[in-house]
Amino acid sequence: MLDKIRIVMVNTTHSGNIGAAARAMKNMGLSRLVLVDPIASIDEDAIQRSSRAEDILHNAVIVPTLEEAIADCGLVIGTSARSRHIPWPLMSPRQSAAKAAEMIPAGNEVALVFGRESRGLTNEELHLCTAHVHIPTEENFSSLNVAQAIQVLCYEMRLALVTDDFRAQAEQEDEAGAWGVPWDYPLATQGELDGLFRHMETVLIDIGFLDPDTPKQLMSRMRRLYQRAAPDKTEVNILRGILAAVQRQGADGHKTQGDSE
Amino acid sequence: MLDKIRIVMVNTTHSGNIGAAARAMKNMGLSRLVLVDPIASIDEDAIQRSSRAEDILHNAVIVPTLEEAIADCGLVIGTSARSRHIPWPLMSPRQSAAKAAEMIPAGNEVALVFGRESRGLTNEELHLCTAHVHIPTEENFSSLNVAQAIQVLCYEMRLALVTDDFRAQAEQEDEAGAWGVPWDYPLATQGELDGLFRHMETVLIDIGFLDPDTPKQLMSRMRRLYQRAAPDKTEVNILRGILAAVQRQGADGHKTQGDSE
Repeated sequence: MLDKIRIVMVNTTHSGNIGAAARAMKNMGLSRLVLVDPIASIDEDAIQRSSRAEDILHNAVIVPTLEEAIADCGLVIGTSARSRHIPWPLMSPRQSAAKAAEMIPAGNEVALVFGRESRGLTNEELHLCTAHVHIPTEENFSSLNVAQAIQVLCYEMRLALVTDDFRAQAEQEDEAGAWGVPWDYPLATQGELDGLFRHMETVLIDIGFLDPDTPKQLMSRMRRLYQRAAPDKTEVNILRGILAAVQRQGADGHKTQGDSE
Repeated sequence: MLDKIRIVMVNTTHSGNIGAAARAMKNMGLSRLVLVDPIASIDEDAIQRSSRAEDILHNAVIVPTLEEAIADCGLVIGTSARSRHIPWPLMSPRQSAAKAAEMIPAGNEVALVFGRESRGLTNEELHLCTAHVHIPTEENFSSLNVAQAIQVLCYEMRLALVTDDFRAQAEQEDEAGAWGVPWDYPLATQGELDGLFRHMETVLIDIGFLDPDTPKQLMSRMRRLYQRAAPDKTEVNILRGILAAVQRQGADGHKTQGDSE
Protein backbone atom coordinates (compact mmCIF):
# COMPACT_ATOMS: atom_id res chain seq x y z
CA MET A 1 0.00 0.00 0.00
CA LEU A 2 2.88 2.41 0.72
CA ASP A 3 3.79 2.25 -2.97
CA LYS A 4 0.62 4.19 -3.71
CA ILE A 5 1.96 7.20 -1.77
CA ARG A 6 4.26 9.78 -3.33
CA ILE A 7 6.17 12.46 -1.44
CA VAL A 8 6.06 15.78 -3.32
CA MET A 9 8.63 18.46 -2.42
CA VAL A 10 7.99 21.92 -3.88
CA ASN A 11 10.85 24.34 -4.72
CA THR A 12 13.27 22.73 -2.29
CA THR A 13 16.31 24.94 -1.64
CA HIS A 14 18.73 22.64 0.23
CA SER A 15 19.92 19.42 -1.38
CA GLY A 16 20.66 17.98 2.08
CA ASN A 17 16.95 18.13 2.84
CA ILE A 18 16.18 16.11 -0.30
CA GLY A 19 18.68 13.48 0.82
CA ALA A 20 17.35 13.41 4.39
CA ALA A 21 13.81 13.10 3.02
CA ALA A 22 14.86 10.10 0.90
CA ARG A 23 16.36 8.40 3.93
CA ALA A 24 13.25 9.05 6.05
CA MET A 25 11.05 7.69 3.26
CA LYS A 26 13.11 4.53 2.83
CA ASN A 27 13.20 3.91 6.61
CA MET A 28 9.41 3.97 6.60
CA GLY A 29 9.03 1.89 3.42
CA LEU A 30 8.08 4.64 0.95
CA SER A 31 9.93 4.98 -2.34
CA ARG A 32 8.33 7.54 -4.67
CA LEU A 33 9.79 11.05 -4.55
CA VAL A 34 8.58 13.87 -6.81
CA LEU A 35 10.47 17.18 -6.96
CA VAL A 36 8.49 20.16 -8.22
CA ASP A 37 10.76 22.75 -9.84
CA PRO A 38 13.57 22.12 -7.34
CA ILE A 39 16.10 24.87 -6.67
CA ALA A 40 18.59 22.38 -5.21
CA SER A 41 20.03 19.59 -7.30
CA ILE A 42 20.68 16.00 -6.29
CA ASP A 43 24.32 16.58 -5.40
CA GLU A 44 26.92 15.03 -3.11
CA ASP A 45 25.28 16.52 -0.02
CA ALA A 46 21.94 14.97 -0.97
CA ILE A 47 23.54 11.58 -1.53
CA GLN A 48 25.46 11.75 1.73
CA ARG A 49 22.41 12.75 3.79
CA SER A 50 20.36 10.00 2.13
CA SER A 51 22.61 7.45 3.83
CA ARG A 52 22.00 4.43 1.57
CA ALA A 53 18.71 5.63 0.07
CA GLU A 54 20.35 6.66 -3.19
CA ASP A 55 17.89 4.56 -5.17
CA ILE A 56 15.09 6.92 -4.16
CA LEU A 57 17.14 9.91 -5.30
CA HIS A 58 18.01 8.24 -8.62
CA ASN A 59 14.37 7.39 -9.24
CA ALA A 60 13.05 10.81 -8.19
CA VAL A 61 10.74 12.39 -10.77
CA ILE A 62 11.28 16.07 -11.52
CA VAL A 63 8.29 18.05 -12.80
CA PRO A 64 7.80 21.76 -13.46
CA THR A 65 4.47 22.27 -11.65
CA LEU A 66 2.54 20.96 -8.65
CA GLU A 67 -0.46 20.32 -10.91
CA GLU A 68 1.63 17.86 -12.90
CA ALA A 69 2.95 16.17 -9.76
CA ILE A 70 -0.52 15.38 -8.42
CA ALA A 71 -2.59 15.03 -11.60
CA ASP A 72 -3.41 11.33 -11.13
CA CYS A 73 -3.98 11.45 -7.35
CA GLY A 74 -7.30 10.91 -5.61
CA LEU A 75 -6.07 12.24 -2.28
CA VAL A 76 -3.69 15.20 -2.06
CA ILE A 77 -2.62 16.17 1.43
CA GLY A 78 -0.81 19.48 1.77
CA THR A 79 1.26 20.35 4.84
CA SER A 80 0.17 23.60 6.37
CA ALA A 81 0.71 25.88 9.32
CA ARG A 82 -2.36 26.14 11.47
CA SER A 83 -3.78 29.56 10.66
CA ARG A 84 -5.07 30.09 7.14
CA HIS A 85 -7.24 32.73 5.61
CA ILE A 86 -10.00 30.40 4.53
CA PRO A 87 -11.21 27.23 6.27
CA TRP A 88 -10.14 23.97 4.65
CA PRO A 89 -10.37 20.39 5.82
CA LEU A 90 -7.53 20.24 8.35
CA MET A 91 -6.31 16.88 9.61
CA SER A 92 -3.84 15.67 12.18
CA PRO A 93 -1.04 13.46 10.79
CA ARG A 94 -2.83 10.45 12.24
CA GLN A 95 -6.12 11.37 10.64
CA SER A 96 -4.39 11.89 7.29
CA ALA A 97 -2.91 8.41 7.53
CA ALA A 98 -6.30 6.95 8.38
CA LYS A 99 -7.69 8.73 5.33
CA ALA A 100 -4.95 7.27 3.12
CA ALA A 101 -5.61 3.81 4.54
CA GLU A 102 -9.26 4.24 3.61
CA MET A 103 -8.68 5.55 0.09
CA ILE A 104 -5.77 3.48 -1.21
CA PRO A 105 -7.67 0.16 -1.21
CA ALA A 106 -10.37 1.95 -3.21
CA GLY A 107 -7.80 2.46 -5.99
CA ASN A 108 -6.57 5.97 -5.22
CA GLU A 109 -3.07 7.37 -5.57
CA VAL A 110 -2.03 9.59 -2.65
CA ALA A 111 0.29 12.62 -2.60
CA LEU A 112 1.79 14.25 0.47
CA VAL A 113 2.90 17.74 -0.49
CA PHE A 114 5.65 19.67 1.33
CA GLY A 115 6.53 23.31 0.70
CA ARG A 116 9.60 25.49 0.64
CA GLU A 117 12.02 25.60 3.59
CA SER A 118 11.41 29.34 3.94
CA ARG A 119 7.66 29.69 3.66
CA GLY A 120 5.91 26.38 3.00
CA LEU A 121 3.19 26.13 0.37
CA THR A 122 1.47 29.15 -1.14
CA ASN A 123 -2.27 29.59 -0.77
CA GLU A 124 -2.66 28.72 -4.46
CA GLU A 125 -0.78 25.45 -3.92
CA LEU A 126 -2.79 24.63 -0.80
CA HIS A 127 -5.98 25.14 -2.79
CA LEU A 128 -4.88 22.35 -5.14
CA CYS A 129 -4.93 19.94 -2.19
CA THR A 130 -7.83 17.77 -1.08
CA ALA A 131 -7.00 18.26 2.57
CA HIS A 132 -4.43 19.96 4.75
CA VAL A 133 -2.43 18.33 7.50
CA HIS A 134 -0.92 20.14 10.45
CA ILE A 135 1.78 18.59 12.62
CA PRO A 136 1.18 19.75 16.20
CA THR A 137 3.97 22.09 17.34
CA GLU A 138 4.80 24.77 19.84
CA GLU A 139 2.89 27.90 18.92
CA ASN A 140 6.00 30.11 18.82
CA PHE A 141 8.35 27.63 17.13
CA SER A 142 6.16 25.93 14.61
CA SER A 143 8.35 25.51 11.54
CA LEU A 144 9.63 21.96 11.23
CA ASN A 145 12.54 21.17 8.97
CA VAL A 146 10.97 19.74 5.80
CA ALA A 147 12.71 16.36 6.13
CA GLN A 148 11.52 16.12 9.74
CA ALA A 149 7.95 16.85 8.63
CA ILE A 150 8.32 14.13 5.97
CA GLN A 151 9.60 11.76 8.67
CA VAL A 152 6.56 12.33 10.88
CA LEU A 153 4.04 11.94 8.05
CA CYS A 154 5.75 8.82 6.65
CA TYR A 155 5.86 7.35 10.17
CA GLU A 156 2.11 7.80 10.56
CA MET A 157 1.51 6.37 7.07
CA ARG A 158 3.54 3.30 7.97
CA LEU A 159 1.64 2.79 11.23
CA ALA A 160 -1.69 3.04 9.45
CA LEU A 161 -0.82 1.03 6.33
CA VAL A 162 1.68 -1.66 7.30
CA THR A 163 -0.63 -3.69 9.43
CA ASP A 164 1.64 -6.66 9.96
CA ASP A 165 4.27 -4.43 11.48
CA PHE A 166 5.83 -5.13 14.83
CA ARG A 167 3.95 -2.24 16.40
CA ALA A 168 0.60 -3.49 15.25
CA GLN A 169 1.50 -6.91 16.59
CA ALA A 170 2.78 -5.58 19.89
CA GLU A 171 -0.34 -3.56 20.49
CA GLN A 172 -2.61 -6.43 19.52
CA GLU A 173 -0.90 -8.88 21.81
CA ASP A 174 -1.34 -8.44 25.48
CA GLU A 175 1.35 -6.99 27.71
CA ALA A 176 3.13 -10.30 28.15
CA GLY A 177 3.73 -10.59 24.41
CA ALA A 178 5.42 -7.24 23.89
CA TRP A 179 9.07 -8.11 24.51
CA GLY A 180 10.37 -7.70 20.96
CA VAL A 181 11.56 -11.29 20.80
CA PRO A 182 9.89 -14.33 22.32
CA TRP A 183 10.61 -14.68 26.02
CA ASP A 184 13.47 -17.09 26.52
CA TYR A 185 11.98 -19.22 29.33
CA PRO A 186 8.44 -20.22 30.25
CA LEU A 187 6.84 -18.19 33.02
CA ALA A 188 6.77 -19.63 36.51
CA THR A 189 3.53 -21.28 37.53
CA GLN A 190 1.53 -19.93 40.45
CA GLY A 191 2.63 -22.99 42.45
CA GLU A 192 6.28 -22.19 41.80
CA LEU A 193 5.66 -18.58 42.86
CA ASP A 194 3.96 -19.76 46.06
CA GLY A 195 7.00 -21.92 46.76
CA LEU A 196 9.23 -18.90 46.24
CA PHE A 197 7.20 -16.74 48.63
CA ARG A 198 7.11 -19.42 51.35
CA HIS A 199 10.88 -19.84 51.03
CA MET A 200 11.34 -16.06 51.11
CA GLU A 201 9.19 -15.70 54.22
CA THR A 202 11.21 -18.36 56.05
CA VAL A 203 14.48 -16.66 55.18
CA LEU A 204 13.22 -13.20 56.07
CA ILE A 205 12.22 -14.50 59.49
CA ASP A 206 15.58 -16.32 59.88
CA ILE A 207 17.61 -13.20 59.21
CA GLY A 208 15.45 -11.17 61.58
CA PHE A 209 13.97 -8.91 58.93
CA LEU A 210 10.41 -10.17 59.18
CA ASP A 211 8.67 -10.24 62.54
CA PRO A 212 6.36 -13.29 62.49
CA ASP A 213 3.96 -11.44 64.80
CA THR A 214 3.25 -8.74 62.14
CA PRO A 215 4.03 -10.52 58.90
CA LYS A 216 1.25 -9.59 56.54
CA GLN A 217 2.18 -6.20 55.13
CA LEU A 218 5.74 -7.16 54.14
CA MET A 219 4.96 -10.42 52.33
CA SER A 220 2.03 -8.79 50.61
CA ARG A 221 4.37 -6.09 49.27
CA MET A 222 6.89 -8.71 48.17
CA ARG A 223 4.20 -10.65 46.34
CA ARG A 224 3.02 -7.54 44.57
CA LEU A 225 6.56 -6.60 43.53
CA TYR A 226 7.53 -10.00 42.14
CA GLN A 227 4.19 -10.90 40.64
CA ARG A 228 3.98 -7.79 38.56
CA ALA A 229 7.36 -8.69 37.02
CA ALA A 230 5.82 -12.07 36.04
CA PRO A 231 9.03 -14.07 36.71
CA ASP A 232 9.98 -16.94 34.46
CA LYS A 233 11.06 -20.36 35.76
CA THR A 234 14.76 -19.52 35.52
CA GLU A 235 14.33 -16.35 37.51
CA VAL A 236 12.44 -18.16 40.25
CA ASN A 237 15.23 -20.75 40.35
CA ILE A 238 17.83 -18.00 40.67
CA LEU A 239 15.90 -16.30 43.48
CA ARG A 240 15.50 -19.59 45.34
CA GLY A 241 19.22 -20.24 44.83
CA ILE A 242 19.96 -16.90 46.46
CA LEU A 243 17.63 -17.68 49.37
CA ALA A 244 19.34 -21.06 49.84
CA ALA A 245 22.75 -19.39 49.83
CA VAL A 246 21.57 -16.98 52.55
CA GLN A 247 20.36 -19.95 54.57
CA ARG A 248 23.72 -21.74 54.20
CA GLN A 249 25.51 -18.61 55.37
CA GLY A 250 23.19 -18.43 58.38
CA ALA A 251 23.65 -22.11 59.13
CA ASP A 252 27.46 -21.68 59.03
CA GLY A 253 27.17 -18.79 61.45
CA HIS A 254 24.87 -20.65 63.79
CA LYS A 255 27.03 -23.80 63.67
CA THR A 256 30.08 -21.82 64.73
CA GLN A 257 28.00 -20.27 67.45
CA GLY A 258 27.53 -23.73 68.91
CA ASP A 259 24.25 -25.04 67.55
CA SER A 260 23.79 -28.77 67.73
CA GLU A 261 24.36 -29.50 64.03
CA MET B 1 4.69 17.99 31.55
CA LEU B 2 7.16 18.02 28.65
CA ASP B 3 9.66 19.78 30.93
CA LYS B 4 10.00 16.51 32.84
CA ILE B 5 11.43 14.80 29.77
CA ARG B 6 15.09 15.00 28.86
CA ILE B 7 16.61 13.90 25.57
CA VAL B 8 19.90 12.07 26.14
CA MET B 9 22.31 11.68 23.20
CA VAL B 10 25.22 9.28 23.73
CA ASN B 11 28.59 9.78 21.99
CA THR B 12 27.14 11.82 19.15
CA THR B 13 29.59 12.16 16.24
CA HIS B 14 28.02 14.84 14.02
CA SER B 15 27.35 18.30 15.41
CA GLY B 16 24.66 18.83 12.76
CA ASN B 17 22.65 16.04 14.35
CA ILE B 18 22.82 17.78 17.73
CA GLY B 19 21.50 20.95 16.11
CA ALA B 20 18.75 19.13 14.23
CA ALA B 21 17.78 17.36 17.46
CA ALA B 22 17.50 20.70 19.27
CA ARG B 23 15.22 22.05 16.55
CA ALA B 24 13.02 18.94 16.61
CA MET B 25 12.79 19.17 20.40
CA LYS B 26 11.84 22.84 20.37
CA ASN B 27 9.23 22.29 17.63
CA MET B 28 7.60 19.71 19.89
CA GLY B 29 7.94 21.76 23.08
CA LEU B 30 10.81 19.91 24.76
CA SER B 31 13.81 21.82 26.06
CA ARG B 32 16.20 19.64 28.06
CA LEU B 33 19.12 18.16 26.13
CA VAL B 34 21.83 16.05 27.80
CA LEU B 35 24.95 15.04 25.87
CA VAL B 36 26.83 12.03 27.21
CA ASP B 37 30.53 12.20 26.35
CA PRO B 38 29.85 13.83 22.96
CA ILE B 39 32.42 13.43 20.19
CA ALA B 40 31.00 16.41 18.28
CA SER B 41 31.00 19.88 19.78
CA ILE B 42 28.29 22.52 19.60
CA ASP B 43 29.78 24.31 16.61
CA GLU B 44 28.53 26.48 13.77
CA ASP B 45 26.98 23.51 11.99
CA ALA B 46 25.01 22.59 15.12
CA ILE B 47 23.78 26.16 15.53
CA GLN B 48 22.80 26.44 11.88
CA ARG B 49 20.90 23.13 11.87
CA SER B 50 19.12 24.11 15.10
CA SER B 51 17.44 26.91 13.18
CA ARG B 52 16.47 29.21 16.06
CA ALA B 53 16.71 26.59 18.81
CA GLU B 54 20.08 27.88 20.02
CA ASP B 55 18.73 28.23 23.56
CA ILE B 56 18.48 24.45 23.81
CA LEU B 57 22.07 24.06 22.63
CA HIS B 58 23.31 26.71 25.07
CA ASN B 59 21.49 25.04 27.96
CA ALA B 60 22.58 21.52 27.00
CA VAL B 61 24.13 19.59 29.89
CA ILE B 62 27.27 17.60 29.14
CA VAL B 63 28.05 14.62 31.38
CA PRO B 64 30.71 11.90 31.16
CA THR B 65 28.48 8.83 31.64
CA LEU B 66 24.98 7.62 30.88
CA GLU B 67 24.55 6.69 34.54
CA GLU B 68 25.00 10.35 35.47
CA ALA B 69 22.59 11.49 32.77
CA ILE B 70 19.73 9.33 34.06
CA ALA B 71 20.46 9.06 37.79
CA ASP B 72 17.34 10.93 38.95
CA CYS B 73 14.93 9.44 36.39
CA GLY B 74 12.05 7.10 37.19
CA LEU B 75 11.54 6.10 33.57
CA VAL B 76 14.46 5.58 31.19
CA ILE B 77 13.50 4.65 27.63
CA GLY B 78 16.33 3.49 25.38
CA THR B 79 16.01 3.40 21.60
CA SER B 80 16.80 -0.02 20.23
CA ALA B 81 16.88 -2.06 17.07
CA ARG B 82 14.59 -5.03 17.10
CA SER B 83 16.77 -8.04 17.78
CA ARG B 84 18.60 -8.34 21.05
CA HIS B 85 20.08 -11.24 22.94
CA ILE B 86 17.69 -11.21 25.87
CA PRO B 87 14.12 -9.94 25.84
CA TRP B 88 13.45 -6.61 27.57
CA PRO B 89 10.26 -4.59 27.86
CA LEU B 90 9.89 -3.28 24.29
CA MET B 91 7.43 -0.52 23.50
CA SER B 92 6.22 1.22 20.39
CA PRO B 93 6.81 5.00 20.34
CA ARG B 94 3.14 5.49 21.16
CA GLN B 95 3.26 3.11 24.09
CA SER B 96 6.36 4.82 25.43
CA ALA B 97 4.55 8.16 25.30
CA ALA B 98 1.55 6.69 27.11
CA LYS B 99 3.92 5.37 29.76
CA ALA B 100 5.51 8.81 30.17
CA ALA B 101 2.05 10.38 30.41
CA GLU B 102 1.24 7.94 33.19
CA MET B 103 4.44 8.38 35.14
CA ILE B 104 5.16 12.12 34.95
CA PRO B 105 2.09 13.15 36.98
CA ALA B 106 3.25 10.70 39.67
CA GLY B 107 6.41 12.78 40.10
CA ASN B 108 8.83 10.94 37.82
CA GLU B 109 11.54 12.37 35.59
CA VAL B 110 11.77 10.72 32.16
CA ALA B 111 14.80 10.18 29.92
CA LEU B 112 14.73 9.23 26.24
CA VAL B 113 18.14 7.81 25.35
CA PHE B 114 19.57 7.81 21.81
CA GLY B 115 22.78 6.07 20.78
CA ARG B 116 25.63 6.65 18.39
CA GLU B 117 25.01 7.36 14.71
CA SER B 118 27.04 4.30 13.75
CA ARG B 119 25.77 1.64 16.13
CA GLY B 120 23.17 2.93 18.57
CA LEU B 121 23.38 1.99 22.24
CA THR B 122 25.54 -0.83 23.60
CA ASN B 123 23.97 -3.73 25.43
CA GLU B 124 25.38 -2.37 28.69
CA GLU B 125 23.70 0.97 28.04
CA LEU B 126 20.43 -0.70 27.10
CA HIS B 127 20.54 -2.63 30.36
CA LEU B 128 20.53 0.67 32.27
CA CYS B 129 17.15 1.49 30.72
CA THR B 130 13.75 0.72 32.20
CA ALA B 131 12.29 -0.04 28.79
CA HIS B 132 13.27 -0.06 25.14
CA VAL B 133 11.42 1.63 22.32
CA HIS B 134 11.56 0.55 18.68
CA ILE B 135 10.43 2.84 15.86
CA PRO B 136 8.81 0.64 13.21
CA THR B 137 10.93 0.59 10.03
CA GLU B 138 11.60 -1.37 6.89
CA GLU B 139 13.38 -4.58 7.81
CA ASN B 140 16.31 -3.98 5.43
CA PHE B 141 16.68 -0.22 6.02
CA SER B 142 16.08 0.16 9.70
CA SER B 143 18.59 2.78 10.85
CA LEU B 144 16.96 6.17 11.30
CA ASN B 145 19.07 9.28 11.50
CA VAL B 146 19.30 10.10 15.21
CA ALA B 147 17.62 13.50 14.86
CA GLN B 148 14.79 11.87 12.91
CA ALA B 149 14.34 9.30 15.67
CA ILE B 150 14.26 12.14 18.20
CA GLN B 151 11.64 13.89 16.04
CA VAL B 152 9.37 10.84 16.03
CA LEU B 153 9.66 10.22 19.77
CA CYS B 154 9.16 13.90 20.66
CA TYR B 155 6.15 14.01 18.36
CA GLU B 156 4.55 11.07 20.17
CA MET B 157 5.41 12.63 23.55
CA ARG B 158 3.70 15.86 22.50
CA LEU B 159 0.59 14.04 21.30
CA ALA B 160 0.34 12.13 24.55
CA LEU B 161 1.18 14.99 26.88
CA VAL B 162 -0.04 18.20 25.27
CA THR B 163 -2.79 17.81 22.72
CA ASP B 164 -6.08 16.12 23.30
CA ASP B 165 -5.65 13.67 20.43
CA PHE B 166 -8.34 11.17 21.30
CA ARG B 167 -6.55 8.04 20.13
CA ALA B 168 -3.48 8.87 22.18
CA GLN B 169 -5.70 9.51 25.16
CA ALA B 170 -7.62 6.29 24.72
CA GLU B 171 -4.39 4.30 24.58
CA GLN B 172 -3.05 6.20 27.54
CA GLU B 173 -6.13 5.27 29.54
CA ASP B 174 -5.66 1.61 28.65
CA GLU B 175 -2.10 1.76 29.87
CA ALA B 176 -2.94 3.68 33.05
CA GLY B 177 -5.80 1.34 33.83
CA ALA B 178 -3.53 -1.68 34.09
CA TRP B 179 -3.27 -1.35 37.88
CA GLY B 180 -6.84 -0.27 38.55
CA VAL B 181 -5.86 2.52 40.92
CA PRO B 182 -3.00 5.03 40.86
CA TRP B 183 0.23 3.66 42.31
CA ASP B 184 0.68 4.53 45.97
CA TYR B 185 4.37 5.56 46.05
CA PRO B 186 6.63 7.35 43.54
CA LEU B 187 8.82 5.05 41.51
CA ALA B 188 12.46 4.62 42.40
CA THR B 189 14.83 6.75 40.36
CA GLN B 190 17.45 5.15 38.14
CA GLY B 191 20.09 6.24 40.68
CA GLU B 192 18.23 4.45 43.47
CA LEU B 193 17.95 1.34 41.31
CA ASP B 194 21.68 1.50 40.54
CA GLY B 195 22.34 1.68 44.27
CA LEU B 196 20.13 -1.35 44.78
CA PHE B 197 21.92 -3.37 42.10
CA ARG B 198 25.37 -2.45 43.43
CA HIS B 199 24.28 -3.45 46.92
CA MET B 200 22.77 -6.67 45.58
CA GLU B 201 25.93 -7.54 43.66
CA THR B 202 28.06 -7.05 46.78
CA VAL B 203 25.81 -9.29 48.86
CA LEU B 204 25.59 -11.98 46.18
CA ILE B 205 29.39 -12.10 46.07
CA ASP B 206 29.59 -12.14 49.90
CA ILE B 207 27.26 -15.12 50.23
CA GLY B 208 29.13 -16.97 47.50
CA PHE B 209 26.28 -16.98 45.00
CA LEU B 210 27.89 -14.70 42.43
CA ASP B 211 31.33 -15.51 41.06
CA PRO B 212 33.01 -12.12 40.44
CA ASP B 213 34.98 -13.69 37.55
CA THR B 214 31.78 -14.34 35.54
CA PRO B 215 29.37 -11.74 36.87
CA LYS B 216 27.62 -10.34 33.82
CA GLN B 217 24.82 -12.77 33.05
CA LEU B 218 23.47 -12.94 36.59
CA MET B 219 23.33 -9.20 37.32
CA SER B 220 21.89 -8.55 33.89
CA ARG B 221 19.10 -11.02 34.67
CA MET B 222 18.52 -9.42 38.05
CA ARG B 223 18.33 -5.96 36.47
CA ARG B 224 15.86 -7.21 33.91
CA LEU B 225 13.68 -8.86 36.55
CA TYR B 226 13.50 -5.88 38.90
CA GLN B 227 13.40 -3.16 36.25
CA ARG B 228 10.42 -4.65 34.54
CA ALA B 229 8.55 -4.55 37.85
CA ALA B 230 9.39 -0.80 37.99
CA PRO B 231 9.89 -0.78 41.79
CA ASP B 232 8.68 2.19 43.80
CA LYS B 233 10.85 3.90 46.43
CA THR B 234 9.34 1.92 49.30
CA GLU B 235 10.04 -1.38 47.59
CA VAL B 236 13.65 -0.43 46.92
CA ASN B 237 14.01 0.53 50.59
CA ILE B 238 12.60 -2.85 51.65
CA LEU B 239 14.94 -4.73 49.31
CA ARG B 240 17.94 -2.79 50.58
CA GLY B 241 16.82 -3.48 54.14
CA ILE B 242 16.78 -7.20 53.35
CA LEU B 243 20.25 -6.99 51.80
CA ALA B 244 21.55 -5.16 54.89
CA ALA B 245 20.02 -7.84 57.14
CA VAL B 246 21.80 -10.54 55.15
CA GLN B 247 25.06 -8.62 55.54
CA ARG B 248 24.57 -8.32 59.31
CA GLN B 249 23.95 -12.06 59.52
CA GLY B 250 27.15 -12.70 57.58
CA ALA B 251 29.09 -10.28 59.76
CA ASP B 252 27.80 -12.03 62.92
CA GLY B 253 28.85 -15.38 61.50
CA HIS B 254 32.32 -14.14 60.61
CA LYS B 255 32.80 -12.46 63.98
CA THR B 256 32.02 -15.69 65.80
CA GLN B 257 34.41 -17.47 63.50
CA GLY B 258 37.21 -15.34 64.97
CA ASP B 259 37.60 -12.30 62.72
CA SER B 260 39.40 -9.38 64.23
CA GLU B 261 36.35 -7.21 64.89
